[in-house]
Amino acid sequence: MGKGGMSVGEEVKDGGEENLAAWLVGINSLKIQPFNLPPLGPHDVRVRMKAVGICGSDVHYLKTLQCAHFVVKEPMVMGHECAGVIEEVGNEVKSLVPGDRVALEPGISCWQCGYCKEGRYNLCPDMKFFATPPVHGSLANQVVHPADLSFKLPDNVSLEEGAMCEPLSVGVHACRRANVGPETNVLIMGAGPIGLVALLSARAFGAPRIVIVDVDDYRLSVAKDLGADEIVKVSTVMQDVAEEVVKIHEAMGTGVDVTFDCAGFSKTMSTALSATGPGGKVCLVGMGHNEMTVPLTPAAAREVDVIGIFRYKNTWPLCIQFLTSGKIDVKPLITHRFGFSQKEVEEAFETSARGGTAIKVMFNL
Amino acid sequence: MGKGGMSVGEEVKDGGEENLAAWLVGINSLKIQPFNLPPLGPHDVRVRMKAVGICGSDVHYLKTLQCAHFVVKEPMVMGHECAGVIEEVGNEVKSLVPGDRVALEPGISCWQCGYCKEGRYNLCPDMKFFATPPVHGSLANQVVHPADLSFKLPDNVSLEEGAMCEPLSVGVHACRRANVGPETNVLIMGAGPIGLVALLSARAFGAPRIVIVDVDDYRLSVAKDLGADEIVKVSTVMQDVAEEVVKIHEAMGTGVDVTFDCAGFSKTMSTALSATGPGGKVCLVGMGHNEMTVPLTPAAAREVDVIGIFRYKNTWPLCIQFLTSGKIDVKPLITHRFGFSQKEVEEAFETSARGGTAIKVMFNL
Amino acid sequence: MGKGGMSVGEEVKDGGEENLAAWLVGINSLKIQPFNLPPLGPHDVRVRMKAVGICGSDVHYLKTLQCAHFVVKEPMVMGHECAGVIEEVGNEVKSLVPGDRVALEPGISCWQCGYCKEGRYNLCPDMKFFATPPVHGSLANQVVHPADLSFKLPDNVSLEEGAMCEPLSVGVHACRRANVGPETNVLIMGAGPIGLVALLSARAFGAPRIVIVDVDDYRLSVAKDLGADEIVKVSTVMQDVAEEVVKIHEAMGTGVDVTFDCAGFSKTMSTALSATGPGGKVCLVGMGHNEMTVPLTPAAAREVDVIGIFRYKNTWPLCIQFLTSGKIDVKPLITHRFGFSQKEVEEAFETSARGGTAIKVMFNL
Amino acid sequence: MGKGGMSVGEEVKDGGEENLAAWLVGINSLKIQPFNLPPLGPHDVRVRMKAVGICGSDVHYLKTLQCAHFVVKEPMVMGHECAGVIEEVGNEVKSLVPGDRVALEPGISCWQCGYCKEGRYNLCPDMKFFATPPVHGSLANQVVHPADLSFKLPDNVSLEEGAMCEPLSVGVHACRRANVGPETNVLIMGAGPIGLVALLSARAFGAPRIVIVDVDDYRLSVAKDLGADEIVKVSTVMQDVAEEVVKIHEAMGTGVDVTFDCAGFSKTMSTALSATGPGGKVCLVGMGHNEMTVPLTPAAAREVDVIGIFRYKNTWPLCIQFLTSGKIDVKPLITHRFGFSQKEVEEAFETSARGGTAIKVMFNL
Repeated sequence: MGKGGMSVGEEVKDGGEENLAAWLVGINSLKIQPFNLPPLGPHDVRVRMKAVGICGSDVHYLKTLQCAHFVVKEPMVMGHECAGVIEEVGNEVKSLVPGDRVALEPGISCWQCGYCKEGRYNLCPDMKFFATPPVHGSLANQVVHPADLSFKLPDNVSLEEGAMCEPLSVGVHACRRANVGPETNVLIMGAGPIGLVALLSARAFGAPRIVIVDVDDYRLSVAKDLGADEIVKVSTVMQDVAEEVVKIHEAMGTGVDVTFDCAGFSKTMSTALSATGPGGKVCLVGMGHNEMTVPLTPAAAREVDVIGIFRYKNTWPLCIQFLTSGKIDVKPLITHRFGFSQKEVEEAFETSARGGTAIKVMFNL
Repeated sequence: MGKGGMSVGEEVKDGGEENLAAWLVGINSLKIQPFNLPPLGPHDVRVRMKAVGICGSDVHYLKTLQCAHFVVKEPMVMGHECAGVIEEVGNEVKSLVPGDRVALEPGISCWQCGYCKEGRYNLCPDMKFFATPPVHGSLANQVVHPADLSFKLPDNVSLEEGAMCEPLSVGVHACRRANVGPETNVLIMGAGPIGLVALLSARAFGAPRIVIVDVDDYRLSVAKDLGADEIVKVSTVMQDVAEEVVKIHEAMGTGVDVTFDCAGFSKTMSTALSATGPGGKVCLVGMGHNEMTVPLTPAAAREVDVIGIFRYKNTWPLCIQFLTSGKIDVKPLITHRFGFSQKEVEEAFETSARGGTAIKVMFNL
Repeated sequence: MGKGGMSVGEEVKDGGEENLAAWLVGINSLKIQPFNLPPLGPHDVRVRMKAVGICGSDVHYLKTLQCAHFVVKEPMVMGHECAGVIEEVGNEVKSLVPGDRVALEPGISCWQCGYCKEGRYNLCPDMKFFATPPVHGSLANQVVHPADLSFKLPDNVSLEEGAMCEPLSVGVHACRRANVGPETNVLIMGAGPIGLVALLSARAFGAPRIVIVDVDDYRLSVAKDLGADEIVKVSTVMQDVAEEVVKIHEAMGTGVDVTFDCAGFSKTMSTALSATGPGGKVCLVGMGHNEMTVPLTPAAAREVDVIGIFRYKNTWPLCIQFLTSGKIDVKPLITHRFGFSQKEVEEAFETSARGGTAIKVMFNL
Repeated sequence: MGKGGMSVGEEVKDGGEENLAAWLVGINSLKIQPFNLPPLGPHDVRVRMKAVGICGSDVHYLKTLQCAHFVVKEPMVMGHECAGVIEEVGNEVKSLVPGDRVALEPGISCWQCGYCKEGRYNLCPDMKFFATPPVHGSLANQVVHPADLSFKLPDNVSLEEGAMCEPLSVGVHACRRANVGPETNVLIMGAGPIGLVALLSARAFGAPRIVIVDVDDYRLSVAKDLGADEIVKVSTVMQDVAEEVVKIHEAMGTGVDVTFDCAGFSKTMSTALSATGPGGKVCLVGMGHNEMTVPLTPAAAREVDVIGIFRYKNTWPLCIQFLTSGKIDVKPLITHRFGFSQKEVEEAFETSARGGTAIKVMFNL
């Protein structure tokens, strides 16, 4: 794929109305162009998108055409944090009807491999996931999606909140894998969007005490507003690990049972491994630096386990329950909103890429 | 503590017979000297030592006066892999009588802290462990030890095999923490004593396929004799990780579910992390290099967990069952035997330190 | 032991002040008499009792001299739900000082058997437990107890609340064994003291929806006040099981994941087994009828597991955290209070035995 | 459905060759009649059946037209323990080719419900399972089945052994749910086909000691030949439970960790509950009596859990591994063989129904 310009393969009209989508067509190049919908299968629904959030991975693809080991080789529709309204259902679909407001789980797994069958479908090697190449995403007027991955929202949960189920799911899955509960004191490294959903999730899972660490005052103040018990500001200098651990332990006031490293640097992981108490767990959430230099042996010798987190599974029902009951409020995370014109799409991605006060940037389609 | 020479504090006679022990009195300096036994408590037994093995940590202390974060500051009796015959029991002891042959679990935990109470007593911060400073070890004519840490050996298990319960326990604990069973294909990095007990344990836990990796032909041949399905010879060069992973996958012929890194280098851990399949586990067994540079993020993104292993807990009964039933035969690991004179003790430690064909060096007292 | 009258063996004076205790000396016969304290061991504390609650088992012993398979053969001091103020500490005790307000965990286990060592000390066959024959209880002016079973209360938790840690622990242990969390819809059979602590615990563990069932309007109203989402009134007639299940499912509005049977009749257990959804759990909490006639096979064929609950382990720190943070308020359970005279002790037990509006009857000493 | 005679709905020809199946057409009435194959879907395979075993549930349906809560209302093809040779594959099937010998897992689940998605697909409410009404079975010349439920057999595993994966799966699933391993002493109530596969499975999972109980000398002798450590003969009289427990404990020589009740009477379950040690598990395997009168409370008070078992999930790969490696030999279980004529089918079912020396009755088609 050329850098900055190329032709798009699937720009097809869809009956009277043209279905438009935001295509990644080259580095730093997004274009709103027609997107041909696949036929509606008997177990599918057709959804008019209403709210789509921008994820860090979207920005990665925009800036580099790759993320982790995935590489964009053909023009690709962006977006995977989304919710909308059902317009049509396949003839085997019994649980949903047109007009239902739904949040979409973005990954379609094969249900034939061992991972799917044993309930770890997030590890399915044949996963088809919105906006993970070569699969198109959901930043479009309409998408077709399996009904069983479309979760009905109750009246008191907005479509924007529905779209937030996707990032929230990362926090929920991390809390499940780390077995967070009312006896788990939690440390979070990084107060970006992933750190903040980890914070909200850990609280909802009952964590009695949560300390969050970042280099940025603004992010820490948001974390405090969202309910962190203590915030700890640190520098990026590697030598400070021991010193930081002391500050973290003072802020926690008790042992650290589970640490979520939501930043993924050698520095944050070193602090995470050193601060976590014997028998604890460190979860590496989100995509960190490929290779890390970390004090793994002293941590292992305290039986601190390092738990890997990849996306999520079976999280939408719980996320919706948390939002419905009010146990979690994701609305403060949505800091910027944009419409779905060429100009606004470009602005929205720039806003997300700049970071700063932007936590979650949301499209209202 | 001076290097190479100092006075020893507790050289006291015990009735008619002098109790002798092998004291570490300085770097590379071991002396057989009197060792005063503590009084026999109501729940204790007095044991005449018959078989004591040399562990890598013993050699570490001899060469450097330290191991991990433990530092020898006062003369210390060596040894913690041991078995003997009971000579006297405390007046509350009901399960054992003089003449019983017993293997000793070397660590006495506090039973008052949270770790002890929740069954993870190996993480007890007040653990008193044979030959971990400042606690004396068991390379002595006699020791006093709690009865509940003294496990009776059946007739068909020798005292040497009893002493081998200690290193075997490391393998058993690793298999338990990694949940090895009849569905777990196992990769082992390193065919030293720890790698070999991991091999024997994994087989006893039902692992259907075990591949073991080392740089040394002799060790690999021992591993093959002990039942490894395939052996893979590798180099120590960091660049070869990807190539090694290919060789390992070919040798395994299926996915790797659990990897035991029994070497603890950045290289072996990198191979372990890269070779282990999605949803698998890598266990860091034994003391590796403090800091490692490893591809942690790609492993975490496959939900490969890194499981720390520290010593063991509740392993003696199972080890003895494995030895009694013949499911595990540890005798081939005992390659060298020595008596308990000043000269032989020195020779024995030199033999163990040299490595080569020495796997387990055993004292017969 | 004679019925209704006998001599008491250990009525010894303790220095200047006489230590008095409530002795069970025969069926329906309680006497306040002197109670000789054992010597203070190095790891013990001497505690002046301030709050002691009456448990159903205390009433059982009073009425029948037995409970489950335990039989009172010698006069026995009653009471095991208790808190007080430390008066003296043994010379190895570092964590507590005189004046500290503490809640006492009543069972002293052996720490030498396999159950203790693997963290299931509540199953220890040598457990010495307050007021479980032949061990004396804590309804006394003073008791001597191990420091590690004496848990310091923060300023905002009263001594009565401290005493309530004991019954609350039953609910907490049940929630842990049943793995209750934010995804667990909970059904509770029986709104007596055990059912109510199960309710409070399940809520604190995050259960999103809790339905409670009883035959008594008053108890159900208390449950509702304590936060049950729905209450269901039922009869005691066996034929109604199917009908009740329908009512329960309507009240729940979703599947039942975990049921706590806190009543222990064939009827309640039949309803529990029938109402619980596939893959769910039924916990039998507290002492039920010895033999039950229940539809076990249809439940097993839905992989509904029946989980046994015996007392608790490692619950005091969590209970105190719940009370400190306000996540659980046990004060509404304390419905009646009595002083520690012969007459009041008799009245208190009668009040507890009568049931009715009495939930927890508490002594203030 | 009429008793003993009715018309059959789907007797359609399949091209040149007629596909015949054994239809249950009324109580005690089986007829070999044509069976119309469904169209081959893209993910399906068409399999020529070669070995089909008779299960207790097949006999139940034959004698009563029902089993558990399933009722046969329309003529139904029998059989679900089967293996055969692939004749044709759907155009999306990549893992199998015509000529492959395969064992078939009989249940097709929906992969859309919560149970399927969390890896407990055996609890799927929409399961379509061979010979569970209204779904037809596999006692036919040919069947069409999903490729991902068709498991290739290696050369050293026969088709008859392949068919035995089905009953063996029940034992394997029970061992997994009960977490049987090298530390689990196992008691088995009942030495029928299910008890025997539980025996073989428990041994393969590493159980060090297995005691099996039955009323029948012949069955016990088979169990002994298959590797039971001890056999215990008992009567059917309810009063003997306590006495039996003594005999069982003597035969075991240590505590019972897991009991499989493969008989399902009040008597066997009472013995199972009473014999199992504190913290142990009792698994109710296979279909027992609907309602049982059992001492549930004393078991629960020792935290003995009752674990329900329904069919199996993800067991074929492990069964095939056990058969391939020789860890399990199922051949001795196949005691009778029949061809696929009307007369032989009737004889085969009569043989299976009579019990006696018949353990597994197998058709060779």
